Amino acid sequence: MGQQEIDAVTAVARRRIPAEGVIDDRTRLRTYECDGLAHYRVTPALVVVPEDAEQLGAVVAACAEHGVPYVARGSGTGLSGGALPHAEGVLVVTSRMREIREVRRADQRAVVEPGVINLDVTRAATPEGYYYAPDPSSQQICSIGGNVAENSGGAHCLKYGFTANHVAAADFVAPDGETVRLGSTAPDTPGYDLLGAVIGSEGTLGIVTTVEVKLTRLPEDVRTLLVGFGSTDQAGAATSAIIAAGIVPAAIEMMDALAIEAAEAATACGYPDGAGAVLVIELDGSAADVGAEFDDVEAMCREAGAFEIRVATDPTERALIWRGRKSAFAAVGRISPDYIVQDGVIPRTALPEVLTAIDELSRSSGVRVANVFHAGDGNLHPLVLFDDSVEGAGEAAEEVSGAILDLCISHGGSITGEHGVGMDKAKYMPRMYTDADLDTMQLVRCAFDPAGISNPGKLFPTPRLCGEVPGRHKGAHPLQAAGLAEVF
Amino acid sequence: MGQQEIDAVTAVARRRIPAEGVIDDRTRLRTYECDGLAHYRVTPALVVVPEDAEQLGAVVAACAEHGVPYVARGSGTGLSGGALPHAEGVLVVTSRMREIREVRRADQRAVVEPGVINLDVTRAATPEGYYYAPDPSSQQICSIGGNVAENSGGAHCLKYGFTANHVAAADFVAPDGETVRLGSTAPDTPGYDLLGAVIGSEGTLGIVTTVEVKLTRLPEDVRTLLVGFGSTDQAGAATSAIIAAGIVPAAIEMMDALAIEAAEAATACGYPDGAGAVLVIELDGSAADVGAEFDDVEAMCREAGAFEIRVATDPTERALIWRGRKSAFAAVGRISPDYIVQDGVIPRTALPEVLTAIDELSRSSGVRVANVFHAGDGNLHPLVLFDDSVEGAGEAAEEVSGAILDLCISHGGSITGEHGVGMDKAKYMPRMYTDADLDTMQLVRCAFDPAGISNPGKLFPTPRLCGEVPGRHKGAHPLQAAGLAEVF
Repeated sequence: MGQQEIDAVTAVARRRIPAEGVIDDRTRLRTYECDGLAHYRVTPALVVVPEDAEQLGAVVAACAEHGVPYVARGSGTGLSGGALPHAEGVLVVTSRMREIREVRRADQRAVVEPGVINLDVTRAATPEGYYYAPDPSSQQICSIGGNVAENSGGAHCLKYGFTANHVAAADFVAPDGETVRLGSTAPDTPGYDLLGAVIGSEGTLGIVTTVEVKLTRLPEDVRTLLVGFGSTDQAGAATSAIIAAGIVPAAIEMMDALAIEAAEAATACGYPDGAGAVLVIELDGSAADVGAEFDDVEAMCREAGAFEIRVATDPTERALIWRGRKSAFAAVGRISPDYIVQDGVIPRTALPEVLTAIDELSRSSGVRVANVFHAGDGNLHPLVLFDDSVEGAGEAAEEVSGAILDLCISHGGSITGEHGVGMDKAKYMPRMYTDADLDTMQLVRCAFDPAGISNPGKLFPTPRLCGEVPGRHKGAHPLQAAGLAEVF
Repeated sequence: MGQQEIDAVTAVARRRIPAEGVIDDRTRLRTYECDGLAHYRVTPALVVVPEDAEQLGAVVAACAEHGVPYVARGSGTGLSGGALPHAEGVLVVTSRMREIREVRRADQRAVVEPGVINLDVTRAATPEGYYYAPDPSSQQICSIGGNVAENSGGAHCLKYGFTANHVAAADFVAPDGETVRLGSTAPDTPGYDLLGAVIGSEGTLGIVTTVEVKLTRLPEDVRTLLVGFGSTDQAGAATSAIIAAGIVPAAIEMMDALAIEAAEAATACGYPDGAGAVLVIELDGSAADVGAEFDDVEAMCREAGAFEIRVATDPTERALIWRGRKSAFAAVGRISPDYIVQDGVIPRTALPEVLTAIDELSRSSGVRVANVFHAGDGNLHPLVLFDDSVEGAGEAAEEVSGAILDLCISHGGSITGEHGVGMDKAKYMPRMYTDADLDTMQLVRCAFDPAGISNPGKLFPTPRLCGEVPGRHKGAHPLQAAGLAEVF
């Protein structure tokens, strides 16, 4: 693979895509060198910005023909380096594929192109009484295609689930440039659920070019509470009590004292004074249900030790409560020059134990950790603070950040809740999975992409060739087995 | 493959499994010759009934070593011949793996073995205030492992979704005998969602040996209505109005006049006299919600032309309403000596059009069709009636039954809602999928099972060798590509 192959792909791109959508000028290529995880930077050899699925498919087919790797990029907001370019490859940017083709009220579906911004789906559906439920913090800018690649969640996935729960079908360009239909409009689809396998595969199986999403009915009533507690233990106890009572709020978000301090400094959100932790709890549904649940939730918070409960009664107050929470990541810049946003998951029941352990990690290492997280489903976002100008501080922070992931794993959790594995966490995959588990994934990868050109280097830990996948099926590799037995 | 290989597998089975769990006596083998679709019958060469995952894995490993096909069987209630044995293969029966290992109230999970009966999960969870939501009509006898293989639904999947929505994790024996963990206890799992690909794969990718299911909270209130209409058009209009209003009942079931006649003859369920169609509508949730929805649903039914509405106010009355519906398939035997149970799906919005077309098909062919279906999600179960003693009647019924599937496909639906493809509908797959779609599934099949020993002959239309999968990845087959590029 070299310049000759890139030139061949460039020639195809120039024939198929209008001039402004084919970028090979070094300076302009540099602007695509990273996604939301800016500490990895690689300049791609070529950027293409196709206008439709046909142009996109033609570029992928050319990549396949010439053995050139490619990486798909939506809005570039990902936090795991999943859209980090390949130095000798093509970056396929979907930002010109932004048409919302249909909003079908009768069966609660919208058909959109992959570059469509998450929030724009909701904007298009709202006049019909519906919205698109998955709401990553970046929803004003992130793309549906990126959401599909990462199986994105958001504050409200406690009640409504991840992207996988809201996608009904997709058109998909496989790594040979061929278009395949995944899923269907019907509620159940015969054959393998490859749509499910593609959602969350971080661009390693191919690129979606049309996404049919499910729409959710706008709730009749929404009530948002901001609850101040003396400690994260109290806030955790309230969370457990609410869930144990069978109430599923739309969201239960927790912030600890350090995170509150940062949010306060950045947005003057006016969170309760002296709180050791706050919960932002949102209830939605029918007015009757929300009213009944509200009374229960309030009582459970008081019982767990809440010293202040505020309730938003209109959209402005609601936005104010969310402002502190939604700005928390950026706000941390006010109290620390540098920080790592970690993303891990634990079973909700392990929350108090893991928070105590993070606290001990922080104390023993002297590295400050601010905790912001989706408490309802155990998705932690610890912010590990450091000052890069102090020698060894970055390494110490990395160590604490990694140790937090170990805690998640040892408590039966996961190394990522919604940011994905990408470049950043590929090395942790063997801590979660056995060799047999990873080999099985690799076999599926090889089925879709035997030459390994679709987003190589992401998601999986060990660079390995498809022919080297260890002998899961000893003596029965596809080609060797060809003469032996019928498959179907 | 021949007797020598079967003998080798039998020898392994005898070493690992207690004697009563290894069956090779011809007479006893015959009792396993079919599943719920009795018109396909094949006697297996060997039946094994392992007691645990280890015994099961050892048999599968022996099958892999000797190239012997195997078929998994739960309770044998499947309606598409998915558990039809292979004449030169092993039938792996899970009926001794029936332990419910855990019911964890705190995180709403149960861990069960694959032979556990569907309804027993609910029985174990009820004291904790929970139940297992997917409810196939056969739930008193069908197994969780079979439900996973078929991605089973039921009357209540309108609101609660299919099996895929209720399984969090599984241990899985791949076709080489290796055990892999799929999914996790955490809400999101990094890497490929292979659990999703395995659920509904009808035993062609391997066998689950432990299933961690999600439990659903028992609703505070349940109200069941039986509504009589003059015609299916009126009943369809009521269904559309309810869904369009944003109400999601737990179930909306429809039966037409012929189905009502059959149910009446069999169970004396006392459905409304002279009804052209009935709806069974079940509302569940909080008492406040159910009360409000009930008023709306009643009004919408009246508006659509309902002439009689009965409401069950206690479990006995509720059971009476459901009795007619649940016995409908068997009841058809009262009005016809033979019948085919068809299973197809259409987008709900196409319901009136498709029912009219089925009616025309029936008229023009002279073949009677009784319609029983999950109206809420467009899952049709037409019962095509015939008398096998009349020459040509069976063929005519088959033709009408196939034409109904064509109607489903041409209206954007699917060839099966919940019974699966199995033996029975493999030939219809090319009517739903392009060659590229099917080839992609076949590539995944070959990744898991290159020798094609796991439930061969099911699900896919064309017997084909893995080495013959057409060149989706021209010049880049796994082995050929091995020298070319890195995969991970």
